[in-house]
Amino acid sequence: MSAHAASPGTTKLSLDVAAVGNAIVDVLSQATDRLLDELGVVKGAMTLIGAPEAEALYTRMGAATECSGGSAANTMVGVALLGGRAGFIGKVRDDQLGGIFRHDIHAVGVEFETPAATDGLATARCLVLVTADAQRTMQTFLGAAAELNPDDVDPDMIRRAGVTYLEGYLFDPPPAKKAFEKAAALAHSAGKRVALTLSDPFCVDRHRNDFQKLIVDHVDILFANESEITSLYKVNDFDSALQLVRRQCEIAVLTRSERGAVVVAGDELHVIEAEPVARVVDTTGAGDLFAAGFLFGFTRGLDLATAGRIGAICAAEIISHFGARPAVSLAGLVETKIGIKVC
Amino acid sequence: MSAHAASPGTTKLSLDVAAVGNAIVDVLSQATDRLLDELGVVKGAMTLIGAPEAEALYTRMGAATECSGGSAANTMVGVALLGGRAGFIGKVRDDQLGGIFRHDIHAVGVEFETPAATDGLATARCLVLVTADAQRTMQTFLGAAAELNPDDVDPDMIRRAGVTYLEGYLFDPPPAKKAFEKAAALAHSAGKRVALTLSDPFCVDRHRNDFQKLIVDHVDILFANESEITSLYKVNDFDSALQLVRRQCEIAVLTRSERGAVVVAGDELHVIEAEPVARVVDTTGAGDLFAAGFLFGFTRGLDLATAGRIGAICAAEIISHFGARPAVSLAGLVETKIGIKVC
Repeated sequence: MSAHAASPGTTKLSLDVAAVGNAIVDVLSQATDRLLDELGVVKGAMTLIGAPEAEALYTRMGAATECSGGSAANTMVGVALLGGRAGFIGKVRDDQLGGIFRHDIHAVGVEFETPAATDGLATARCLVLVTADAQRTMQTFLGAAAELNPDDVDPDMIRRAGVTYLEGYLFDPPPAKKAFEKAAALAHSAGKRVALTLSDPFCVDRHRNDFQKLIVDHVDILFANESEITSLYKVNDFDSALQLVRRQCEIAVLTRSERGAVVVAGDELHVIEAEPVARVVDTTGAGDLFAAGFLFGFTRGLDLATAGRIGAICAAEIISHFGARPAVSLAGLVETKIGIKVC
Repeated sequence: MSAHAASPGTTKLSLDVAAVGNAIVDVLSQATDRLLDELGVVKGAMTLIGAPEAEALYTRMGAATECSGGSAANTMVGVALLGGRAGFIGKVRDDQLGGIFRHDIHAVGVEFETPAATDGLATARCLVLVTADAQRTMQTFLGAAAELNPDDVDPDMIRRAGVTYLEGYLFDPPPAKKAFEKAAALAHSAGKRVALTLSDPFCVDRHRNDFQKLIVDHVDILFANESEITSLYKVNDFDSALQLVRRQCEIAVLTRSERGAVVVAGDELHVIEAEPVARVVDTTGAGDLFAAGFLFGFTRGLDLATAGRIGAICAAEIISHFGARPAVSLAGLVETKIGIKVC
């Protein structure tokens, strides 16, 4: 738990994965269905909110706990806990929540050197209302995270990474979309791979054409769950989406909750079983950690089926407890389950 | 979870209890025994640290979660969750952690209007290292909390409260000690009671004579655990301390972990059994919540044995899960266990 990112000045190692995503602190609180109704929020969804709405919602929320989050950041933490070398690019403000985000991602050994904004909006937070049925309703104030711009993309970090992983949620603010394009171009010109996670069916709905163009032009590895991939192609069933996506990108990793996942790469197709879980406590972070496991296996040169299996193991770990960041060393877990020493 | 303190301008209700204590945000992280050794910290103890030490320790700590804490603040949250009316006086800075503390204590309906400091040290934080044996090692940076001074003691809040509850930890900074004396004098001149919790055997050791003087001069109800009360009187056994304390204050509530508690008031003496717990997960907050239950029962006019029983029920709830603030409505729990509707 006390490994640290390399300090500036030391020789920089190559990275397995570098991510560009939202730097967010999660604020979790228990809530009743009645409160959700009163607030007029859609249960189970992620909604973007502005500063006044975030302030008003926080006032209505119960006592809370705070922990670092962000979809791609969670994935990089997973890669690091598997024994991989991960980097993260994302924007915080120079405030206490920004310090917390930086501390936590450094504490697990993820490289994170994007300078904090010294003015403008505060560090992003995701207000999470947890209902008794273990569902999570998320209202995200993007704040400083949405101010990520192409200048924040460190060319050296991208060039050092085997895969550059882009978080779909960042497609909302236009300068961040430009940062995506810069990162993708840098990765490809260095002969490296580009991965994208679609993040959210509503996000896909807001940017369907842009996502399709990005995928065709820049993406080698696409991560999506069933509702995201069917939203992307505006189809009703999983198999139709599968047939479309296999023509559009080199590798697609399609997760399906308790029905496991499908990994497709042209003519190669693997059906990955979900890892059994004694009790599903909280499904937040399942997709983020599946991506972590897959990317770790892939960058270590394992075959697609084994990479998928590692993804399933990591997803199972994260849903068996509260919180979207793993509580245990994932490396040991994978070694036990797969019988290979991964680092 | 969404009740709120009365807004300024509305007629203010009487309070069951008002506390003067440290306004602290807890920062929890898992740690190994080896890390504790490397840091040179005493396992299981609470140590006060300065800003540079807090910064250095935080850098060494693993990924963390943040939640509001503070001993007397936890007690006031317990009183509110029992259905009582509670107020809190303590100092935060006008920073994000200060906002988190204010939000969380307001969210459960505790009155808290002490203005935040606009300069000086940051909001207090307690860096908690949790080892695999569920022990907690606490390093506290008092920051703004230690700058509480007599001007922060709102005379109106003290006069409206049946009991004013003082947190022993505040005996370290001299201006806070003066705030104690002001609060005690205000309470007594309004015909109300003064309670004190000794907080920590090391704190008692640092201020033994001052604590003894405060107890004789000002304290009606004393809360202490076994190591604190034996430290206060520099005796080796519980019974010796018991005989001494019954001559020095009107009511003493002496908690003894799994051996229950003893409540003594002159010739009246009650031995309170510990409430059975299926599994002790985390003992942090047991004393804080025992005090909450006792104070709630006492201020509702219940007899000392029943007030003690409510304390034991609340303590059992808090040790059966992680965290020092209760997860459930304590009022319902007490109603079920004792068979009386308490609010």
